Amino acid sequence: MPQTPIIIDCDPGVDDAIALLLAFASPELQILGITTVAGNVPLALTQLNARKMCELAKQTDIPVFAGCPRPILQALQTAEEIHGKTGLDGTTLPDPTMPLQPDHAVSFLIQTLDQATEPITLATLGPLTNVAIALIQAPHIARNIQSIVMMGGAITLGNITPAAEFNLYADPHAADVVFRSGIPITLLSLDVTHQVLTTPERLENIRAIASPVGQAAADLLSFYGQLDCDRYGMPGAPLHDPNVIAYLLQPKLYRGKPCHVAVETASPHSIGQTIIDVWDATGKSPNATVIQTADAEGFYQLLTNRLRTL
Amino acid sequence: MPQTPIIIDCDPGVDDAIALLLAFASPELQILGITTVAGNVPLALTQLNARKMCELAKQTDIPVFAGCPRPILQALQTAEEIHGKTGLDGTTLPDPTMPLQPDHAVSFLIQTLDQATEPITLATLGPLTNVAIALIQAPHIARNIQSIVMMGGAITLGNITPAAEFNLYADPHAADVVFRSGIPITLLSLDVTHQVLTTPERLENIRAIASPVGQAAADLLSFYGQLDCDRYGMPGAPLHDPNVIAYLLQPKLYRGKPCHVAVETASPHSIGQTIIDVWDATGKSPNATVIQTADAEGFYQLLTNRLRTL
Amino acid sequence: MPQTPIIIDCDPGVDDAIALLLAFASPELQILGITTVAGNVPLALTQLNARKMCELAKQTDIPVFAGCPRPILQALQTAEEIHGKTGLDGTTLPDPTMPLQPDHAVSFLIQTLDQATEPITLATLGPLTNVAIALIQAPHIARNIQSIVMMGGAITLGNITPAAEFNLYADPHAADVVFRSGIPITLLSLDVTHQVLTTPERLENIRAIASPVGQAAADLLSFYGQLDCDRYGMPGAPLHDPNVIAYLLQPKLYRGKPCHVAVETASPHSIGQTIIDVWDATGKSPNATVIQTADAEGFYQLLTNRLRTL
Amino acid sequence: MPQTPIIIDCDPGVDDAIALLLAFASPELQILGITTVAGNVPLALTQLNARKMCELAKQTDIPVFAGCPRPILQALQTAEEIHGKTGLDGTTLPDPTMPLQPDHAVSFLIQTLDQATEPITLATLGPLTNVAIALIQAPHIARNIQSIVMMGGAITLGNITPAAEFNLYADPHAADVVFRSGIPITLLSLDVTHQVLTTPERLENIRAIASPVGQAAADLLSFYGQLDCDRYGMPGAPLHDPNVIAYLLQPKLYRGKPCHVAVETASPHSIGQTIIDVWDATGKSPNATVIQTADAEGFYQLLTNRLRTL
Repeated sequence: MPQTPIIIDCDPGVDDAIALLLAFASPELQILGITTVAGNVPLALTQLNARKMCELAKQTDIPVFAGCPRPILQALQTAEEIHGKTGLDGTTLPDPTMPLQPDHAVSFLIQTLDQATEPITLATLGPLTNVAIALIQAPHIARNIQSIVMMGGAITLGNITPAAEFNLYADPHAADVVFRSGIPITLLSLDVTHQVLTTPERLENIRAIASPVGQAAADLLSFYGQLDCDRYGMPGAPLHDPNVIAYLLQPKLYRGKPCHVAVETASPHSIGQTIIDVWDATGKSPNATVIQTADAEGFYQLLTNRLRTL
Repeated sequence: MPQTPIIIDCDPGVDDAIALLLAFASPELQILGITTVAGNVPLALTQLNARKMCELAKQTDIPVFAGCPRPILQALQTAEEIHGKTGLDGTTLPDPTMPLQPDHAVSFLIQTLDQATEPITLATLGPLTNVAIALIQAPHIARNIQSIVMMGGAITLGNITPAAEFNLYADPHAADVVFRSGIPITLLSLDVTHQVLTTPERLENIRAIASPVGQAAADLLSFYGQLDCDRYGMPGAPLHDPNVIAYLLQPKLYRGKPCHVAVETASPHSIGQTIIDVWDATGKSPNATVIQTADAEGFYQLLTNRLRTL
Repeated sequence: MPQTPIIIDCDPGVDDAIALLLAFASPELQILGITTVAGNVPLALTQLNARKMCELAKQTDIPVFAGCPRPILQALQTAEEIHGKTGLDGTTLPDPTMPLQPDHAVSFLIQTLDQATEPITLATLGPLTNVAIALIQAPHIARNIQSIVMMGGAITLGNITPAAEFNLYADPHAADVVFRSGIPITLLSLDVTHQVLTTPERLENIRAIASPVGQAAADLLSFYGQLDCDRYGMPGAPLHDPNVIAYLLQPKLYRGKPCHVAVETASPHSIGQTIIDVWDATGKSPNATVIQTADAEGFYQLLTNRLRTL
Repeated sequence: MPQTPIIIDCDPGVDDAIALLLAFASPELQILGITTVAGNVPLALTQLNARKMCELAKQTDIPVFAGCPRPILQALQTAEEIHGKTGLDGTTLPDPTMPLQPDHAVSFLIQTLDQATEPITLATLGPLTNVAIALIQAPHIARNIQSIVMMGGAITLGNITPAAEFNLYADPHAADVVFRSGIPITLLSLDVTHQVLTTPERLENIRAIASPVGQAAADLLSFYGQLDCDRYGMPGAPLHDPNVIAYLLQPKLYRGKPCHVAVETASPHSIGQTIIDVWDATGKSPNATVIQTADAEGFYQLLTNRLRTL
């Protein structure tokens, strides 16, 4: 089977961790490396958590890199109220013994893309600082990026502010660089991930997997969902980042359309908002495929089945 | 029956015209005056159209005032593609013989509110220039405003831009003044009016009214809806401004909740956007009751029944 | 002698008060009215102070109007640290017996300009709220404005912030309306008024005038200048508003050139800044004559001589 | 003699070229490397021109690095109207044979600062993209930066726009990162460099140096100054970048004071402006020593004497 070469850029974070597990369980994907960034928790934790997940899933040959510890212009804002102090609250995974790679994530991105013999897909699960900085330093790498499949933004309402979703809010200027890069982007926003709810039944199915991975996944999801469940009054918590991997595996679970997406970088009210031109009011050419609907049942079948293989 | 004293501030415009007819047909409301503003079409037409509607409905004792011919800071933008060149395309109503009042709409607002013996409700159907300019000149009038029931803004997606609805886009700075005035506001946004669709059946019911008013209303609605129907692929066109009057008559047709609403005045991407804090992400005190759902069937029954009485 | 008809829009304020005295002493000017605005101190004080100055100079036939008590968008900011709590600290003038006019300053501006048989000059000494609101309500009055001679802004450095001068900072949106109105403007900015210093010698010359007006002027100028003297380390305090009247009387005291002037309305760093295109970097057509140099000796001779006549 | 270790970050450009020559002629400075950035001309030319200058001055052991070919957020804007198509118009220097270093300038900056045994001074002569990107990737390098001596910004008027100087305008977001980094900064702005004019006499003194370096310097300065001379009506063209090196050699030629400096990143009128709080209006702590005056005669003596040694 020909594999899709990908680099996963992430800030684990609970949902990043589940996304990593799903990717590890997917032979369709050739994971060239995991690059980490400050986001849900500081960089010192995201790179540690990425390695914890690699060790949990016995994927210690995947190189893990630490990237930018701060956004381009803004002060770092993290989301411990969602992910816990460690970023992986709900579990107690041992400290990893696999090493962190010595190179900077940005150097890895530039070098790998420079030398690629086939285009590489970027799966981005956090703030886009690493990708943007690589593009600013070495814009020519864009030509070796097959596409960026991104969790971020919102078609309608934000989560961290009324208008903005956390990943884009955390580094709106990086997102702006990426959305104006000309690279093909597939956007999985809050409007999609709020269709993909971890209901009690779905959680039970994961907990029923009799493996350390299954237990850890269930523990993480139990911890993680409570706040959002309470806030939105929904029958389960939205699950964000794993949709990026699921999209790479089974794009037919998702439907969307090409739209122009702008990123707000100035307004104090809406900084980090994705202004998505769903009805083509601006006449600007689409720069992203904006996913509008997800097959939640299909997603959880895929996720549960794959987790079972680890 | 005790009447609610109101002033209708509008920019007719087709849906303003229907709103005026609904108000004219409602003995619960005491219409102290109609103030007009530049918006859907220039001021010279909106004041003319307001008088045309008064004459059509034989309400020539209601005083009509011309207000601000331009927004506070921006250049005037009109919406002839929706309302036609006259603002009332689809009909050919005769030129009115009732006079335009000599006073400026802003002077009328200030004087009437200054001298009011009971609080007055403002029903605003267009850009908020007149109301804002009155509040800047004479902030003390706020204490005699019962509330502002406003058609404007969007909880989710805009119409004139991806983020902004026409009324607020046309004068965002005026809207900002109003939303920061402390006056109680009820907001009927695009998210409500897109639930209130003029389907073919509903239009037929209006056309079946055997009166000049019924014919004019049906003609206007036929012309008006086509563009939006095509654009949004919905079974009928959204009907905006009459919801303000319907809310005053039967508030139980509508459900919403108190939210903080900010108005974007700076960002080129989203100027005029209402940033509505539906999930209380900001912790700011609500300054408006934001309607979320409408009983469309109930609305069209109310509208059709009332139009029948004219 | 043919007189120049003018309306003085002001927020007295010490330097406004001196400007009023200079105008009162100038038969070349026909003062149609004094309109007041919130600025250096709140409106309740600026209209009171304008009447106090009229009575001091026995000019009780000049009608004084109260205007806007607040800026267009911003919260009111006053400058009591410069002008004292009363706005005229340093003197104790009696409460005026002449009445405040019942009309709003904005109504007076619109009506007077509407009915003018010859173009009228506006001398603006404070925030531009009144003028801007009149222009928004009734843009056609612009054609009867001969020119606006304005104290405000800075070519180089501000005073209230690093970039902004107080009058424009206090209502930048009003200033933006005025500078984009197409009306001819002559701008006397801080770069000019900082050339016109009330040195001890010049102050002595005024104090030597053996009249109540001379004493009051000297008392006001003594109080007023201290803070600026200390701050800028100059041999006297800059004197701002009277330059507007002096320019109307003896324009040859001033030299400048036509420039494009934009007003910053968005940036938190520089809101209210006048961005003056001295070197024609933008290619935009000039919208103001920007005065660059003043003959300070000539100015103080004019001022002192005229004060002697009251 | 103990040497000051420096890295010169530049975009040659004529005045950068003169600054490089002055640095080459200064045994007080240990030039660890020259990093180049897109600015006056594109990166392909700035790195080439840096090497040309090294070869002209027989300094081929100084490593030259290519850095970021684009600003952080904005489109690249160059200044060929000042520096000519090659960036070094006025001369025809041979193509260099010394190699460009294989590492990216940002990697060199991070690595060198990471491994520094004593703090290093950065002399920045162009847009600050390289320095900012290094600081975003690896903020800890700040502790090994002795100070940044920068040509950029303006206390009063800009050159590329009414408010902004070219280097900061070209990448305002990079400048914002640098000014908020906490690193000690000495700012040599247009207000200083416009005191340092290449008058005909001073140019003759340079041309009188009977060496290839002297001829090249004179040729470059002859070409370069014409536009500014004509524009500003001054007796010579302002000379910008060499002031950074002169300051490092003889700081007593310059006088200034600590001020807070903010960089405008949002306003279309003034993006790239340095808002310098000369009179401490904001109460914010100084983040830069802002030079206000230069001893032009002393500068040209230093420059001419040093060029004579090459």
